[in-house]
Amino acid sequence: MTARRLALARSGSLIAASPRARFLATAASTSIFPSSDQPTHPALVKPGGPIPGPLSIEASKEIGGFQEDRAHAFVADYARSKGNFIVDADGNVMLDMFAQIASIALGYNHPDLVSLAHSPEFVMAATNRPAIGSFPPAQWASWINDGGIGDEWVKPRGLNQVFTAMCGSCANENAYKAVFMAYRARERGEGVAFTDEEMTSCMKNQEPGSPDLSILSFEKGFHGRLFGSLSTTRSKAVHKVDIPSFDWPAVPWPNIKYPLAEHARENAEAEAATLARVEETIVAWRQKAPVAGLVVEPIASEGGDQHASPSFFRALRELTHKLGVFMIVDEVQTGVGATGRLWAHEAWDLERPADIVTFSKKMQAAGFYHNIETRPSVPYRNYNTWMGDPIRALQARQILRTVRASNLLENVRDVGSHVYSNLESLFAGSAMSNLRGENQGTFIAWDLPSTKGRDDFLVKMRRDHGVHLGGCGDSTVRLRPMLVFEKKHADIFLQAVSEVLKNMK
Amino acid sequence: MTARRLALARSGSLIAASPRARFLATAASTSIFPSSDQPTHPALVKPGGPIPGPLSIEASKEIGGFQEDRAHAFVADYARSKGNFIVDADGNVMLDMFAQIASIALGYNHPDLVSLAHSPEFVMAATNRPAIGSFPPAQWASWINDGGIGDEWVKPRGLNQVFTAMCGSCANENAYKAVFMAYRARERGEGVAFTDEEMTSCMKNQEPGSPDLSILSFEKGFHGRLFGSLSTTRSKAVHKVDIPSFDWPAVPWPNIKYPLAEHARENAEAEAATLARVEETIVAWRQKAPVAGLVVEPIASEGGDQHASPSFFRALRELTHKLGVFMIVDEVQTGVGATGRLWAHEAWDLERPADIVTFSKKMQAAGFYHNIETRPSVPYRNYNTWMGDPIRALQARQILRTVRASNLLENVRDVGSHVYSNLESLFAGSAMSNLRGENQGTFIAWDLPSTKGRDDFLVKMRRDHGVHLGGCGDSTVRLRPMLVFEKKHADIFLQAVSEVLKNMK
Repeated sequence: MTARRLALARSGSLIAASPRARFLATAASTSIFPSSDQPTHPALVKPGGPIPGPLSIEASKEIGGFQEDRAHAFVADYARSKGNFIVDADGNVMLDMFAQIASIALGYNHPDLVSLAHSPEFVMAATNRPAIGSFPPAQWASWINDGGIGDEWVKPRGLNQVFTAMCGSCANENAYKAVFMAYRARERGEGVAFTDEEMTSCMKNQEPGSPDLSILSFEKGFHGRLFGSLSTTRSKAVHKVDIPSFDWPAVPWPNIKYPLAEHARENAEAEAATLARVEETIVAWRQKAPVAGLVVEPIASEGGDQHASPSFFRALRELTHKLGVFMIVDEVQTGVGATGRLWAHEAWDLERPADIVTFSKKMQAAGFYHNIETRPSVPYRNYNTWMGDPIRALQARQILRTVRASNLLENVRDVGSHVYSNLESLFAGSAMSNLRGENQGTFIAWDLPSTKGRDDFLVKMRRDHGVHLGGCGDSTVRLRPMLVFEKKHADIFLQAVSEVLKNMK
Repeated sequence: MTARRLALARSGSLIAASPRARFLATAASTSIFPSSDQPTHPALVKPGGPIPGPLSIEASKEIGGFQEDRAHAFVADYARSKGNFIVDADGNVMLDMFAQIASIALGYNHPDLVSLAHSPEFVMAATNRPAIGSFPPAQWASWINDGGIGDEWVKPRGLNQVFTAMCGSCANENAYKAVFMAYRARERGEGVAFTDEEMTSCMKNQEPGSPDLSILSFEKGFHGRLFGSLSTTRSKAVHKVDIPSFDWPAVPWPNIKYPLAEHARENAEAEAATLARVEETIVAWRQKAPVAGLVVEPIASEGGDQHASPSFFRALRELTHKLGVFMIVDEVQTGVGATGRLWAHEAWDLERPADIVTFSKKMQAAGFYHNIETRPSVPYRNYNTWMGDPIRALQARQILRTVRASNLLENVRDVGSHVYSNLESLFAGSAMSNLRGENQGTFIAWDLPSTKGRDDFLVKMRRDHGVHLGGCGDSTVRLRPMLVFEKKHADIFLQAVSEVLKNMK
């Protein structure tokens, strides 16, 4: 963009705060985002005008010359974005409650991450990318353990190993590989070597070396888009059509009614039916492609924020254990604080830990936690050139340190219940239904009557009020603010919702 | 590591240059690595002593507490590594001709990359990782096109689209997905929508929505380790055993004899036989799982540096086109200059460009080049949260600019022929055989009589001479120096080879 245009783009007009606004914070308060220049409100160049605006569209078009641009919502100016506010190429300042598909923890240009990026250690790590599995940096253990992804405060309870990878899909796929190897190792018996037949047949992609084993997942689950992970993803047909897939099983998500507390008995029945179905499926597939692992999200996010009760997950853990199936908890979207817990599955209070917990997104680093049982028998079996990215491990460490130092989990819990209870009141008698996410921090969602209704709602929130939200499932709005989202930001959001609702009536 | 130990580690002793050394550069020359503190020679703490040394072993052990450490060669001190020289945790200074499994282009701590890492643009990009497919940075087109991976000088001839991803495996898998979608789009006919049956069946991983299509690869090929890419990888059983695989076909690599020029006629026959086999396989699999794409490396690297003639690849291109199969050239290891060309497949002089060229490693950024035919019909089909990494795109741009400004391709060609011709003389009458890589820059390899012989050779080069090399295949030594590897470095390497050879006799 030219300098003239950037200057032009800077003249955004503040959305006027109505004196009668119910939810607008009235006093400037200290912020947990430690920078004075975080905007206080959305500011649109022309409220009600189109987003993307002309400069966004022009920049998208240029990108469209060499790369898919039809999924662009708008083109962003990250240098000007700050904290909870994203600025687009036209200069619109929006409250960002989608946060790069739930992948920003601390807000834009957080001073701690900016400082980190200037540190000699970060510059060195960025400039010299090692093959970590063979030539790790001398600081690797410290980057992981001293407040980082391997810190005692961070590791899911009961898991003491961490495999580092590049993204959420890779995290899940490498976890599946670990599970298949461990499953076969258990069948084979301790210390038993591969047979010649296994070694020969695997080179032809044939049994017994390439065994017909499977991963069981849930309908509406999303676990990534590479060939193994996509075979377990069941959220939307557009992700899957035309792509060859492993013939792996899935069972329907329990037919849950919201709010959970009001439908405890029916939900328990639905969950029991699902558990029975899981058991049947695992038993039946022993004759076909034995289920080595079961993968599940604590909240099926991409598939429309589908919840279930802690007792369901506890029973699932016991069932998988009883049937000799490894349990993989996919915390790519739910992990790192958004539910008010570092890991969403902490809410289940498992007696027996899951076998594997995968992560990515807000962690910036990706990978999975596990135990020694799922470390392969010999080296180079679960291996690749990079084995993760040291600078993302350094960022993860800083993010986790800041989460802890600034009590961001507590903030998420407080703000989450503020949002939830206010939405509950606002939605009474409205077209909004199935509000969910009580006691799940800011991981809150609800449904509209149709896909079109949901999409219209998202457009109005953004275009008229400068609040940027995301959808999921068929007709769901999902809240995915950052961990530095405060009550004052929640009030901006709630005010905007109330105004959009008013105009919907 | 403690400060005391680091200080201890700094006292490496220079390997004495013998006055009779045949290959040692005698005069200090200006370097294409623009920094005065690149070491001039390897320096081992105790020549002949073990590598990994005690501090490396200690650091490995610490990592081993939470992560696989059995594939560690040594733990490295990247802050002290410079140019072509890697320094390990014990202070051993080694000439690095493996370069993080062929993934470092410009040497350690190259001033251009250090400057880049300090730039406000890099800091901003590192701190704010966007979901590029939906909220791209305003600078994205410029980062790609202005000297970057989408620059006219960079894009493989005939391809004008670039898909950005996270690593080599992802690059290949996303390329396979693009191929499957384009193949089905061609079958379906232009503008024809998905059927309800396709949309429903794909959610169950069943035909017709999840079609039984395949990717054809070559035995000894390596294309990554995720579930789709691993199904096309055929280099080593240890990569594949116990992992479920798609039943996809492979054909043997042509039975090539080296040097290529001396066996032109026999090789042409072997290549013709392979081409016939490729055609037979594609035709036969139409009844089983039609071949939508063929993937091939210009030099099958992990599988032992298997070469073939340009005419073979030209014929392969014409054959795949004739049979309606998309041709995917995997340049993850061969790309970005190591063969003396930016892309190894330039040597083929194709009349009709390949459909897809994948990249990663030395580019630091990963992805694939293609044309609009392989852009999916609707958005979100080949999509994920991050869609690549902006800071790796910025590094790729700097690497490519430096390659061009410093004439590194010419350097690689010059040094490569120097190395090749000297090895030819050195190996006459020795146990070294099948020297290959003439006119392939520094992408040179040869065989030893056994795996053990090869491994012993690698140990001697490292432990006695401070030259760090890699192996591939069963008994192959592969040279993978950086693009800043100069004749003076080649002479250190050649001198070391000649001494190891002497002691082998």
